Amino acid sequence: MFDLIDKMLQGNRYALARLVSIIEDRTDHSVELMERIYDLARPVPVVGITGPPGAGKSTFVDRLIGRYRAQDQQVAVIAVDPSSPFSGGAILGDRIRMQNHAVDEGVFIRSLGSRGHFGGLTLSTSEVVALFSAAGFDVILIETVGVGQTEFSVMEVADTVVVMLVPESGDTVQTLKAGLLEIADIFVVNKADREGADKMAQELRQMVHMKPPKDEWTVPVLLTSANTGRGCDEVAQAIADHVDQVFRSGARHRVAARVRAFHEVLVEEFRRRLGGALVQGEGAVGQLAREVRDGRKSPYTAALEALHNAEWLVELLGQADGR
Amino acid sequence: MFDLIDKMLQGNRYALARLVSIIEDRTDHSVELMERIYDLARPVPVVGITGPPGAGKSTFVDRLIGRYRAQDQQVAVIAVDPSSPFSGGAILGDRIRMQNHAVDEGVFIRSLGSRGHFGGLTLSTSEVVALFSAAGFDVILIETVGVGQTEFSVMEVADTVVVMLVPESGDTVQTLKAGLLEIADIFVVNKADREGADKMAQELRQMVHMKPPKDEWTVPVLLTSANTGRGCDEVAQAIADHVDQVFRSGARHRVAARVRAFHEVLVEEFRRRLGGALVQGEGAVGQLAREVRDGRKSPYTAALEALHNAEWLVELLGQADGR
Repeated sequence: MFDLIDKMLQGNRYALARLVSIIEDRTDHSVELMERIYDLARPVPVVGITGPPGAGKSTFVDRLIGRYRAQDQQVAVIAVDPSSPFSGGAILGDRIRMQNHAVDEGVFIRSLGSRGHFGGLTLSTSEVVALFSAAGFDVILIETVGVGQTEFSVMEVADTVVVMLVPESGDTVQTLKAGLLEIADIFVVNKADREGADKMAQELRQMVHMKPPKDEWTVPVLLTSANTGRGCDEVAQAIADHVDQVFRSGARHRVAARVRAFHEVLVEEFRRRLGGALVQGEGAVGQLAREVRDGRKSPYTAALEALHNAEWLVELLGQADGR
Repeated sequence: MFDLIDKMLQGNRYALARLVSIIEDRTDHSVELMERIYDLARPVPVVGITGPPGAGKSTFVDRLIGRYRAQDQQVAVIAVDPSSPFSGGAILGDRIRMQNHAVDEGVFIRSLGSRGHFGGLTLSTSEVVALFSAAGFDVILIETVGVGQTEFSVMEVADTVVVMLVPESGDTVQTLKAGLLEIADIFVVNKADREGADKMAQELRQMVHMKPPKDEWTVPVLLTSANTGRGCDEVAQAIADHVDQVFRSGARHRVAARVRAFHEVLVEEFRRRLGGALVQGEGAVGQLAREVRDGRKSPYTAALEALHNAEWLVELLGQADGR
């Protein structure tokens, strides 16, 4: 498995794709694999693009890719779709990009799904970001399929977050107001030719205005028409400015992200190994799970017993990192 | 703390509200508290209502409440808003209901927010459901503020899931197609007087038709106008029919939910206690967290060390359930 890393470093795209799958799958080797990859990771800009379905994110990302390629930068895209248990293939608006960038070795696009459990999706995204930076990409884009709490959480991985809306997203904006304000470094109102675009931009500017600026950055509200390309240069410039500012100010969020990763890796390992033990009915905790299933014990009685006699945990977590 | 349960059983609404907060907060006493509550829980119908913002869910829930009250049933509503760190008060469309049901002792409405960590929101919802059933409510409604993976996951707690859409939700439907089909027991197209309502209903019927029926239940697609009340009786009847069918067929999902609760309670306890140890820098794992923060160790090197010497875990989890 570890020779995949060598191949990936030599530019082998198949090895890179395999490594993404291994990271997603979480096996007994995941933590060790990530230890190696993390040592190879480089601090490249990570740009998140989020917004409701139909906002035109994919078209915009496609334009961004074109700009970075024109500067001869290698671009990796992570398309996060928490609603999909599938990953790997071309979901989302990838078909557009397939046409434009399919034969371009400088672009790598990968979808990440939830695989049934979305709690670890933010962690997986941060791990794939580390992998892509190790693989030599100069900029990494994270695109989500919608706006929800999972998508917002995934955006924690990004240095710069672009929130893309369209005049029709009025309801969404109302509902998610606090969350959007919290995560947006740049607001983009796309489909600017449609009715209500200026009004929405104005409302967003008022929202932004009421919020104290973070790290001397005032969140810009920009208008685009991703289809025609109008306004996209301004957004690309704003992204570059914000990334600069983040790296200049020491990228403090990355320190917090490291500690969070430590916490989350341990939680995910615990969840994964416990899940395995429960399914297979292994050990003391597996016995308790059977009693819960049969209705002989409530989940909480069983949990209290498991917590009081937690020696099973050492065996569960201490086992098998084996190469 | 445990005397709150006695008061709650005597009908004290303040005690009930306090217990919800304690469940949400997760303290050292949570598992023990839930053990008591779980023993008092009763198998009452749990109905989930989900759909994108602006679909009219709150108005519809208000009408449902009115119907149940007319049959002299006591109704509890859990309004789940993963995007909000706040809970307790009147977020969502609660103001409408405040007007209609504020002085009605037979209705209890409570919002659940994510409190910064939404991984445990499904677990908290299932725990509040157990609490409300123990408190004597005859039917429990779970309403979400939007459709996202977190909301879908919360719907696992319900016996019957109503997915409410409006003609404008076209994009949402496209994006979430698989997820919506997976969770919906009943589709409702609200604002049926608007253009495109019939077309959307027809498309949904085609989607439903292509899916094999689950447990001999064919998912109905109903048209409503929650504002005027048109079609709401039909939906209420479909809900009653589906709940009947679920309980007749043995409510197998509740067995799976018990085992899942056992798993998730242990994971959440692990997450919570580990988080505390990391913040306070306690023990071996706290020392590792410091090294991660200072950049002396990568999160993955530290995680491997923590997993290899997992004795700290016994202390972490075995400690303090103390009354």
